Amino acid sequence: MFTTLVATALFLANQTSVDLTHTLSEKTVVYPGKTPFSKVICSYYESGYRLDDIHLSTGIGTHMDAPSHFCPEGSGIEAVPIEQCYGEACVVHLTSRVGTNADYAITKADLEEWESSHGPFPAHSIVLLHTGWDKHWDTIQFCQTDETGVSHFPGLSGDGAQLLVERKVSAVGIDTMGMDVGAATQFVAHNVLLGADIILIENLANLSLLPEVGSTVFLLPMKIKDAPESPVRAIAIFNKAKKN
Amino acid sequence: MFTTLVATALFLANQTSVDLTHTLSEKTVVYPGKTPFSKVICSYYESGYRLDDIHLSTGIGTHMDAPSHFCPEGSGIEAVPIEQCYGEACVVHLTSRVGTNADYAITKADLEEWESSHGPFPAHSIVLLHTGWDKHWDTIQFCQTDETGVSHFPGLSGDGAQLLVERKVSAVGIDTMGMDVGAATQFVAHNVLLGADIILIENLANLSLLPEVGSTVFLLPMKIKDAPESPVRAIAIFNKAKKN
Repeated sequence: MFTTLVATALFLANQTSVDLTHTLSEKTVVYPGKTPFSKVICSYYESGYRLDDIHLSTGIGTHMDAPSHFCPEGSGIEAVPIEQCYGEACVVHLTSRVGTNADYAITKADLEEWESSHGPFPAHSIVLLHTGWDKHWDTIQFCQTDETGVSHFPGLSGDGAQLLVERKVSAVGIDTMGMDVGAATQFVAHNVLLGADIILIENLANLSLLPEVGSTVFLLPMKIKDAPESPVRAIAIFNKAKKN
Repeated sequence: MFTTLVATALFLANQTSVDLTHTLSEKTVVYPGKTPFSKVICSYYESGYRLDDIHLSTGIGTHMDAPSHFCPEGSGIEAVPIEQCYGEACVVHLTSRVGTNADYAITKADLEEWESSHGPFPAHSIVLLHTGWDKHWDTIQFCQTDETGVSHFPGLSGDGAQLLVERKVSAVGIDTMGMDVGAATQFVAHNVLLGADIILIENLANLSLLPEVGSTVFLLPMKIKDAPESPVRAIAIFNKAKKN
């Protein structure tokens, strides 16, 4: 027992962690049609303690999409296995390709370039797509809407999504408002991935701080009965020497 | 890089996980005075996807208390360092002592007995108090109220809390509705622990499945700006051989 305790303690002692989660507040930008976040103070130490209430869309801030977000017969958040919510991260840094292009769709070729350096995305790994868009968080540029009402932000193409289904990854995360590009109408990436029971994480923060390989991420949602989405707390843990 | 990826993958491959979180639903019992959980379906695939909204007290279900829950000048949930939200678990199994006693206050001596087997609770560890009360979850017995309106459930005594402050642990969790016994009016355990910036987790589930030492727990709250409490997803990871 003692040996195990020390061994695990040493494992953690050599690690550093990064918070991949944006802060939820009334300022949080939401996808068109979703209910914004609100909070009220219900009791301010009158009985010795403070109580607050919150009201929000389940798909707000840094959040998880369960299969039932797009698939009527799919699993809800409560049924996502916890083993699917943590694992080895494969971080694809794409900021130089995306640049300022709010319609950039990450291609299969972009993902294959990562694989040319590191080998195929392992089964049960968690693929994180770093577009650099989180620099616009909490501003109108994060989810730009043109004069025709169409949203614009980078996302994943359908053939990119299909590659990740073939690799049998556990989850795919991105630092934009949605897995499909903002201008999408068919939501191919959502449907392809969620249809294969691969969970999605949107609105991630701080992906620039992660190494391409070698970190473990934890993407833990609330355990809400029969919900299609949930806010998550997303963190990464990796060897101190690997922090950029 | 490849060596690190394989090493971490092997670390995870040898582990098993346990969900320590109760499911949130309209049935969830709340502490007297707190707002119950509610959920509505706002959009049912009319645009291709489903959207739900939720309304709740931040201190509902399996949840975390930040210092500001009891201390007006204390940190809120957003400011709790993520390093304090995971770590080595020290699990104190107390079911045979607590039995059916809804007023049982876990003593300093109870904690010292654990230490007589395993040594002092390490600094930065997470102490989990297993009373067995989670078997009453989602029933009126979980938070019994007598004819005078006083609640009854087991909790931690003030001297037990003081010992854990001296040990400089990161967090203390329990499987009852609150860290103090239900009949408390002064909330000594809450004030002693939160006053020392030790975070609390209440309404934990499945602590019976954890070994006394050797597991790592992750207790991840939502990242809500200026909130005194938050629902958490709480999980434990440990060597497969250690699962009871």
